Amino acid sequence: MKISVLRLGHRKNRDIRVTTHCCLVARAFLADEIILSGEEDAGIIETVRKVSQNWGGKLKLRYEPNYRKFLQTRKKKGQLIVHLTMYGEHLAKKLAKIRKLAINKGIVVVIGAEKVPPEIYRIADFNIAITGQPHSEVAALAIFLNRLQQDAPLSPTAQKRFKNARIIITPGEKGKKIKKN
Amino acid sequence: MKISVLRLGHRKNRDIRVTTHCCLVARAFLADEIILSGEEDAGIIETVRKVSQNWGGKLKLRYEPNYRKFLQTRKKKGQLIVHLTMYGEHLAKKLAKIRKLAINKGIVVVIGAEKVPPEIYRIADFNIAITGQPHSEVAALAIFLNRLQQDAPLSPTAQKRFKNARIIITPGEKGKKIKKN
Repeated sequence: MKISVLRLGHRKNRDIRVTTHCCLVARAFLADEIILSGEEDAGIIETVRKVSQNWGGKLKLRYEPNYRKFLQTRKKKGQLIVHLTMYGEHLAKKLAKIRKLAINKGIVVVIGAEKVPPEIYRIADFNIAITGQPHSEVAALAIFLNRLQQDAPLSPTAQKRFKNARIIITPGEKGKKIKKN
Repeated sequence: MKISVLRLGHRKNRDIRVTTHCCLVARAFLADEIILSGEEDAGIIETVRKVSQNWGGKLKLRYEPNYRKFLQTRKKKGQLIVHLTMYGEHLAKKLAKIRKLAINKGIVVVIGAEKVPPEIYRIADFNIAITGQPHSEVAALAIFLNRLQQDAPLSPTAQKRFKNARIIITPGEKGKKIKKN
């Protein structure tokens, strides 16, 4: 399943760390690409690329000024658009259907910043809540990507997906064990 | 099971949004309390208290200048200390044991900011990785709390835990349905 993440409404100063966390979650939870919208921010793209160089894998990452056009293009390709929002339907009720619809042509997972344009609720095929409480797009993305892939990102074997890593961790009870290539 | 979260090393300007997300995740994923360490920050405590007033529940929230003493006190009470770190052991391998050990006397989940003092790895009963990749303490906390409670935070019935809410969402396919008390 091809998994894309669209991060809406990035604000260059205010969101720098939260958007970086979104990118790193997309990568660690096995998305294929993340597209940043809102204010253009070369710094974040550079930061995340460096993480990918050190830790491996092949996450694609780019800026997209026109999120509407991007979503329309992806819809035309048959990709499923799923918007994560606390105002949406419960994940458990829709997950099996989402997985089935996304498996062939892929999925775009949309996460917002502070304010999401109302049209996103209409463009999305599903508006999905990760709990009905306010919390964090970072957490919502991790939970959703993990469930979508039936816990594959949490599996020890998932680490094989991060090829060409310069840094590899050997899990340990107490403290760090790192191998550098 | 009593669940406490300890957020280490908060930095007042740099971490304001990420620490806020940690607090909101602790609340939405049914922790009983979150303790903030590092730089004291009345603003975050005020922000999260307002969310709790509006959205209900009874999350406890406070600043603790001495994380070492706090962890020692909790250890003496028999609480389990679990530190989330990408250098730790795989969650899947330890989760059943953690749940068993925490169920009676409770658990303190420790999450770091940028740099975690090495002693934390020793004080912790378990160092646990939510994937062996760098991502986000916000995401790690959500995944761990959800798994610890066997997906209870994601259940529609979890919303009943947030009593005395001024705002309640009715999940909807397209757009927002909000009830204000």
